[in-house]
Amino acid sequence: MRKGAFITLEGGEGAGKSTQLRLVGEALRVLGHDVLITREPGGSPGAEDLRQLLLFGNNPLSLRAEILAHFAARYDHVDRVILPALQAGRIVLCDRFTDSTLAYQGYGRAGGNADILRLIHSLTDMLALTPDRTFLLDVPRDVARERLAARAGQPDRYEQADEEFHARVAEGFAAVALHGPDRVRRLNTAQEEAAQISHRIVEDILALVSQA
Amino acid sequence: MRKGAFITLEGGEGAGKSTQLRLVGEALRVLGHDVLITREPGGSPGAEDLRQLLLFGNNPLSLRAEILAHFAARYDHVDRVILPALQAGRIVLCDRFTDSTLAYQGYGRAGGNADILRLIHSLTDMLALTPDRTFLLDVPRDVARERLAARAGQPDRYEQADEEFHARVAEGFAAVALHGPDRVRRLNTAQEEAAQISHRIVEDILALVSQA
Repeated sequence: MRKGAFITLEGGEGAGKSTQLRLVGEALRVLGHDVLITREPGGSPGAEDLRQLLLFGNNPLSLRAEILAHFAARYDHVDRVILPALQAGRIVLCDRFTDSTLAYQGYGRAGGNADILRLIHSLTDMLALTPDRTFLLDVPRDVARERLAARAGQPDRYEQADEEFHARVAEGFAAVALHGPDRVRRLNTAQEEAAQISHRIVEDILALVSQA
Repeated sequence: MRKGAFITLEGGEGAGKSTQLRLVGEALRVLGHDVLITREPGGSPGAEDLRQLLLFGNNPLSLRAEILAHFAARYDHVDRVILPALQAGRIVLCDRFTDSTLAYQGYGRAGGNADILRLIHSLTDMLALTPDRTFLLDVPRDVARERLAARAGQPDRYEQADEEFHARVAEGFAAVALHGPDRVRRLNTAQEEAAQISHRIVEDILALVSQA
């Protein structure tokens, strides 16, 4: 049985993650690969219940509790969905993972506070599952804002946050790229057509899978 | 400003925790102490939302996720309710705390699995709040069953569990007593009147508070 590959897409709101997940998933399926597309927070029934509390709940948690609850959702998603798919040899494409917790909670909410970053790193280590590749989608904030304005539906807690918050999140993702040069590929989605970007992502995943 | 005291009551269902919390709280208030009575899982608005998911949700979490979600609720409760009360010099009486996670998840659900116990111990250490005193209420299982049968309302996930589960939980609480001889006082609530037991608990708390 072929070992699967665990691929995450990261980046701020409006960076183009959903578009790339769809294009990359379709391309890999056409090439005969068994692909699972999933997302965080959520991705399993119990984790979706937690997502609802985290993004739309009336009683925001303390920062440490919010981080623990994100990891509770993540552990359920990993145990019930991601690990079984990888063991079955599938390619898992996941919209957000631990890097988003570092960027949103560690930087966006905590401003890089050392105790909070340490808590997030400890919980990440205990999880014992690192992505084989992470594509970090970058976009200038004004382009992201235009894309978000065109979206339908109720904005979640993060889409409603202020510009200083989003600047700190961007700083967090920059730290992610800096500390994971082998794992993380950074792509600016405002400079190229979506189809060109997805082509490069697919090429990279195919190279990874052929090495495995 | 006088430092508060953090007192937890632990034990299986039907061990008499609610009765003792009420009696001890009343006695301490009569003596002029400022007492906060609270409980887990829950005790703060966000933690109560998580309690609802954990005890009555339709989508049970994986074991690791369940442990993280219990600690998410606990961190919110500690940050928003317990620490502010202790800083204000109050005596906090809490129905269940970390020892219950060790007994119910670590022993009841995981049967003492070493990885799971390690996860619980790590999360407990990160919390950095140990009770000043823990009263572990013991009762033979047949007495507990009689008390539970007399209760009104919808039984939660644990009240519905089988006898082998409750035997493992009792083993977990025995381990808690063994490893915390200074912190933990074990009391058999089937051998004495509730008023006598509460009298002994109050004496112990008063001695603790006078030392502080």
